[in-house]
Amino acid sequence: EGLKVSKMSNEFNREQLESVLKRRFFFAPSFDIYGGVSGLYDYGPPGCAVQANIVDTWRKHFVHEEDMLEVDTTMLTPYEVLKTSGHVDKFADWMCRDLKTGEIFRADHLVEEVIEARLKGDKLARGHSTESADAEKDKKKKNRKKKVKEIKVEKLDDELVKEYETILAKIDGYSGEELGELMVKYKIGNPATGEALEAPREFNLMFETHIGPSGALRGYLRPETAQGQFLNFEKLLDFNNEKMPFASAAIGKSFRNEISPRSGLLRVREFLMAEIEHYVDPENKSHPKFDAVKDLKLDFLPRDIQEAGKTEPIKMTIGEAVSKKVVDNETLGYFLGRIYLFLMKIGIDPAKFRFREHMQNEMAHYAADCWDGELLTSYGWIECVGCADRSAYDLTVHSRKTGEKLCVRQMLPEPKVVEEYDCEIEKKKFGPKFRRDAPKVEKWLLSQSQEELEDLVKELAANDKIVAKIPDITTGEVEIPGDFVKILKKKKTVHVREYIPNVIEPSFGIGRIIYCLYEHSFWTRPEDSARAVLSFPPSVAPTKVLLVPLSSNAALQPVVKDVKEHLRSAQIPFKVDDSSASIGKRYARNDELGTPFGITIDFDSLKDHSVTLRERDSTKQVRGSLDEVITAIKGITYKGLSWEEGVKNLVPFEAQSEE
Amino acid sequence: EGLKVSKMSNEFNREQLESVLKRRFFFAPSFDIYGGVSGLYDYGPPGCAVQANIVDTWRKHFVHEEDMLEVDTTMLTPYEVLKTSGHVDKFADWMCRDLKTGEIFRADHLVEEVIEARLKGDKLARGHSTESADAEKDKKKKNRKKKVKEIKVEKLDDELVKEYETILAKIDGYSGEELGELMVKYKIGNPATGEALEAPREFNLMFETHIGPSGALRGYLRPETAQGQFLNFEKLLDFNNEKMPFASAAIGKSFRNEISPRSGLLRVREFLMAEIEHYVDPENKSHPKFDAVKDLKLDFLPRDIQEAGKTEPIKMTIGEAVSKKVVDNETLGYFLGRIYLFLMKIGIDPAKFRFREHMQNEMAHYAADCWDGELLTSYGWIECVGCADRSAYDLTVHSRKTGEKLCVRQMLPEPKVVEEYDCEIEKKKFGPKFRRDAPKVEKWLLSQSQEELEDLVKELAANDKIVAKIPDITTGEVEIPGDFVKILKKKKTVHVREYIPNVIEPSFGIGRIIYCLYEHSFWTRPEDSARAVLSFPPSVAPTKVLLVPLSSNAALQPVVKDVKEHLRSAQIPFKVDDSSASIGKRYARNDELGTPFGITIDFDSLKDHSVTLRERDSTKQVRGSLDEVITAIKGITYKGLSWEEGVKNLVPFEAQSEE
Repeated sequence: EGLKVSKMSNEFNREQLESVLKRRFFFAPSFDIYGGVSGLYDYGPPGCAVQANIVDTWRKHFVHEEDMLEVDTTMLTPYEVLKTSGHVDKFADWMCRDLKTGEIFRADHLVEEVIEARLKGDKLARGHSTESADAEKDKKKKNRKKKVKEIKVEKLDDELVKEYETILAKIDGYSGEELGELMVKYKIGNPATGEALEAPREFNLMFETHIGPSGALRGYLRPETAQGQFLNFEKLLDFNNEKMPFASAAIGKSFRNEISPRSGLLRVREFLMAEIEHYVDPENKSHPKFDAVKDLKLDFLPRDIQEAGKTEPIKMTIGEAVSKKVVDNETLGYFLGRIYLFLMKIGIDPAKFRFREHMQNEMAHYAADCWDGELLTSYGWIECVGCADRSAYDLTVHSRKTGEKLCVRQMLPEPKVVEEYDCEIEKKKFGPKFRRDAPKVEKWLLSQSQEELEDLVKELAANDKIVAKIPDITTGEVEIPGDFVKILKKKKTVHVREYIPNVIEPSFGIGRIIYCLYEHSFWTRPEDSARAVLSFPPSVAPTKVLLVPLSSNAALQPVVKDVKEHLRSAQIPFKVDDSSASIGKRYARNDELGTPFGITIDFDSLKDHSVTLRERDSTKQVRGSLDEVITAIKGITYKGLSWEEGVKNLVPFEAQSEE
Repeated sequence: EGLKVSKMSNEFNREQLESVLKRRFFFAPSFDIYGGVSGLYDYGPPGCAVQANIVDTWRKHFVHEEDMLEVDTTMLTPYEVLKTSGHVDKFADWMCRDLKTGEIFRADHLVEEVIEARLKGDKLARGHSTESADAEKDKKKKNRKKKVKEIKVEKLDDELVKEYETILAKIDGYSGEELGELMVKYKIGNPATGEALEAPREFNLMFETHIGPSGALRGYLRPETAQGQFLNFEKLLDFNNEKMPFASAAIGKSFRNEISPRSGLLRVREFLMAEIEHYVDPENKSHPKFDAVKDLKLDFLPRDIQEAGKTEPIKMTIGEAVSKKVVDNETLGYFLGRIYLFLMKIGIDPAKFRFREHMQNEMAHYAADCWDGELLTSYGWIECVGCADRSAYDLTVHSRKTGEKLCVRQMLPEPKVVEEYDCEIEKKKFGPKFRRDAPKVEKWLLSQSQEELEDLVKELAANDKIVAKIPDITTGEVEIPGDFVKILKKKKTVHVREYIPNVIEPSFGIGRIIYCLYEHSFWTRPEDSARAVLSFPPSVAPTKVLLVPLSSNAALQPVVKDVKEHLRSAQIPFKVDDSSASIGKRYARNDELGTPFGITIDFDSLKDHSVTLRERDSTKQVRGSLDEVITAIKGITYKGLSWEEGVKNLVPFEAQSEE
């Protein structure tokens, strides 16, 4: 930008940032006067405006630019849908209870914290003073709500230290049972009392409720917006005139009943998501606009590097990443590039960004592969955007469950003769054996895919029967004798190719991105570390202009009124500060709010209708007519001009000191 | 607008509208492939875009124009907050169960329907053929999911007919007990079987859930966004530099677990609200911008007219309404005017709009007065915007409960000597008598307002004791002996006036407004009633421009690409239809989507870069350069120009027939 400001001269201080954010009401704990509820936060006016501006940018950058089909689906979701999607069974964390105190701990977090504390105690005991200072700083940085309140200084066996370090490296990959074994083996209990805890139990993270007056219809608050999009797949494909590929998108709240929320705005129970489901032919994942992103050079941290115990990313272009198969295909690569460009547009620091591939064991149950867009903060690297390959998982399970075909039909250029398995059933035998389950067993057999039929052929050859788990069946499992069914290869002429599309899903945690943006935008003036600034890009800033009359002299009022009317009709969000505080104080207040521009009205304004325009970061000022100044603000805020380009027709103005 | 189109020549047909809305995916039942859940609907791409455009207009019209403080607060709300606000006890409907079939009915709706059906049967029996035809039409219009499936033709006693008519006129005012008595007296049971039902029971309309893993913290999904705003009152006042009056605002989903949702999009369980809480000095409800709305002439239906059994509104200006005290004060009047202007801006038909005042018995528990903005639809008059005077109710109850003062402190111009009640307590007597409740009893006494202290003085004089219901106290109620407390009038010099502001609350049901807008915008071409049009204003229309190449000839492709790029960079939402359908078919499709403009690219475009611009309602066409056409579209869509003004530099174009 050419505005030479040293934003790095004072060290980042999270307490100071949080104090500014709360004082200026960017956010506050919800139900504060009732004592608050952990994991729930409200956004005050500036936070709410930042959110609205980011959502607006997101909609333009993704939905409008790519002609995506945006939908708004309900949060209330019936049990059956989330049972099918796998969330009822698998969307859970491990918790353990202290039966004496009633306290509840998230098992993996507890094991991690206790072992970290023991290792720190060991280092202190060994007199590693530098490291212990670092460790202390780390502790302060990472989390303010630790369960482990005290570090016991105690030297450990070298062997044990190694065991602990191995456990920490693998902490995201343990099952509940394994966590329970670690807790027994290493005597990890309630940190406050030392007492043993109940073995880890699965706790489903969805909020449950009941729909309708009878209480019979169980439901949940959605954990993601994705399911609402998948269920509308047929209607969306029809709306898109059956053209592939295409994407749907949704912006809305989702919910996650965290066991014990911590890390402030980063781990909350109710949050705004923006999700894209891009439906693509599994046999053709090229992307027509791939060239537009292929030369972007980004930091990639693929799975194999992490498995080797390293965290140094590889810097390469998206084009290279795709051609070397670090990133699986062009469509995935295209979205990684678009995600990066979006984050840069809203003001994320490119030096604090990387793409990290999920390890096998940390992927969600529906994902075949996943890259996280991670942002570096004082809490460490934070996952803010997930870009998952959900393959055909969701459309397949919903299609199976409902019997509705969720697939694409594509006319073949010319008919094709294929050999396919065909399943013939001896209908009359089913009734007597399976009774009222008979229709379900028949339907199950007839809805098997080619791959599944191939497996059934093998099973029949080996056992002369099929053992099938069929949802909703009285007995859970049935045995189908070999003479009930014939599965044979047959030649067929087909005119249409039918396929279930794969889904590439860029999924944005808007609240997390906003918090990271606060950290990345925050700095204090080198000359006075108490003067904090939030350097949002003008398009994201909650208010664009602060209007400050130099004095409260009544003579200035008509000009103030005139400037207000002009700003209002230009649709530029502004605030007036006509308080008696000094100009410097008034600007300082608005630097904390991230207001990028100031318009000063002074007695010269009365003569020639000129005003002064101040830039937040550099505090540089220029002067011109009101119309020129408004044109400059619009150009910089909404048309992407730099400050220099925007104000090139205005005259530099020697400001009086801001103090 | 000067575009002479006869939109009224074909009769409105709700089935046809719904078929268009579903076919073009404005909305669909949620979880459709799972059979749906009643009262839950998804918005497809055009519905979602209409919603986003209306929200955007709302934000500009209210939040930006009036410098309101927008907040985003959580939907999850703990029990205690909604207990205090009165929703746990009073946000309920009466339901009755059929113990044999398990069916559940909403008591007031059931009584109303059964009696209406009996009156219709009576009319048929009396041979009132015209009326019965009307009645049949009414029935079809009003509701498609009636519980009463058949009308029994049976003449009733004249006396009974009168009783029934009286009941219908008062149907909104009965208590559960009274509804139960009516059901017994008039033998109203399950319409399908005739069997008697259980007596009406209260059913709370909030969705309940549990927050956190222990299950100990009960919570609800909010029934309104208002509470989240009230709880932040102190922070908002501080953010506003303690200046009064001011308003907060919130846009977000709220929830209502309807007993048996009907009327499609009008009565749903999850819905988008936009709410304003305007905080005003109870002693000064004037409004500085009242002059801007005072000459608007609107239809008012005040309480007294309704109580006299009439429904004919009075037409008067807002200025008259306020000066005649039909509307209580300027601030309320100002918001009624702004509500009206907003609805006109988004395309509501002014002839189908009225303000109706609530009857005493139909007001929510928190309201002191309420005017509904009602829109006329095929379902009758629908309440879409409520404008309630919540007085100081909410701030008072939350303040009491939490002990946090939610009030405004205003420096008096000069100190004032006042006589006020002062409450002195004999602290040492409280402990022995009230034990661990003692602090609560003391706090309760010391937090009483002047009015309440006056009542206590009377109670002490009469009974020499105070009987107090104190929240959270072990025994529920306590007796405070007369010698525990002295309440005396004392003279004090005060420098500050402290008051709890009153709240005027304009509350918008966005989904209901959208449905009404669909009805008000829908018509069919006089020459072909199968050709439907949705005449949204351009600013609200989901897509602004349809781009149609005259033929699929490859020569046109570069121009299509060029036009697309220009529209994209002008940020005008558009769609391309390059299908092989006729121009007429393609336009007809987009008339159903409400797309206001069409740009046709033909072979002349190749020569001179000119294109044709078509207007949806009149199907008029003009021609000019691409730049001129884009300027016209922007002027009409975003700057409020009429079609005539917008295209005055373009040349009328004789269109080929659209058929």
